[in-house]
Amino acid sequence: MKLFACVAAAATLLSLAAPASAQFAKPEDAIKYRKNALFVMQQNFGRVASMASGRTPFDAKVAAESAETAAYMAKLPWVGFVADTDKGETKAKPEIWKEPAKFKEASEKTQAEMTKLAAASKTGNIDQIKTAVAAVGGSCKSCHDAFRKE
Amino acid sequence: MKLFACVAAAATLLSLAAPASAQFAKPEDAIKYRKNALFVMQQNFGRVASMASGRTPFDAKVAAESAETAAYMAKLPWVGFVADTDKGETKAKPEIWKEPAKFKEASEKTQAEMTKLAAASKTGNIDQIKTAVAAVGGSCKSCHDAFRKE
Repeated sequence: MKLFACVAAAATLLSLAAPASAQFAKPEDAIKYRKNALFVMQQNFGRVASMASGRTPFDAKVAAESAETAAYMAKLPWVGFVADTDKGETKAKPEIWKEPAKFKEASEKTQAEMTKLAAASKTGNIDQIKTAVAAVGGSCKSCHDAFRKE
Repeated sequence: MKLFACVAAAATLLSLAAPASAQFAKPEDAIKYRKNALFVMQQNFGRVASMASGRTPFDAKVAAESAETAAYMAKLPWVGFVADTDKGETKAKPEIWKEPAKFKEASEKTQAEMTKLAAASKTGNIDQIKTAVAAVGGSCKSCHDAFRKE
């Protein structure tokens, strides 16, 4: 019983101290999670960006909904960048784990800009949307330049 | 100019009448979108289900956050089931398009049960969470039985 109690206590401590990695059954799941969340984000953002650039007709309702979803999705991918997920089916650069503060800052910048885009899209003002789309695009690009291969 | 005005009006009508398929650049994007949204949903739901079954220690905060995200994600996949996406990298059965009302009902059932799970998880009461997890699991299974291959 003592051994059991000790193991149980250790397991509890471990789970308390565990980083977000504990959320995923295996490294591949973490990689898939962040990629999938980013894809859903990108599809929603892309729809708004396409309207902002005039490639597709502006639909205020669809823009507002898509931007809101993109802003929600922008919060999700980052827990997937856990230790030991710099290899396999990923373009993640080692810099993500070498410079975690910088990476965190970049991810927070994208989240903040996406939240601004959601607010702009709610107004239905295309000029505000265009400005916000450009800011999001800039934050995506600078994060990709620093932290994504290719 | 008249021709241009006519084309523009037709394009506007078309975009107004367009189904959700207009949201995706190509069928593969729609398939990827629904699969990715379902994966992100499943990972969050799975985390709560794992706690409910005792496989992982119960963490009320993580459960509440995960269930909330799962409930949000549960709203997203369905726009991806557009026409001409029953082939390719998908397990979608033709029944999805043959019996759209039934499929809609099944998808709405999952959304409703996931919303109930989010509410249960906010209470922090593990018994309520267990009940809600079982209901979500049942709705996933019945939808998969009817509409997913394998």
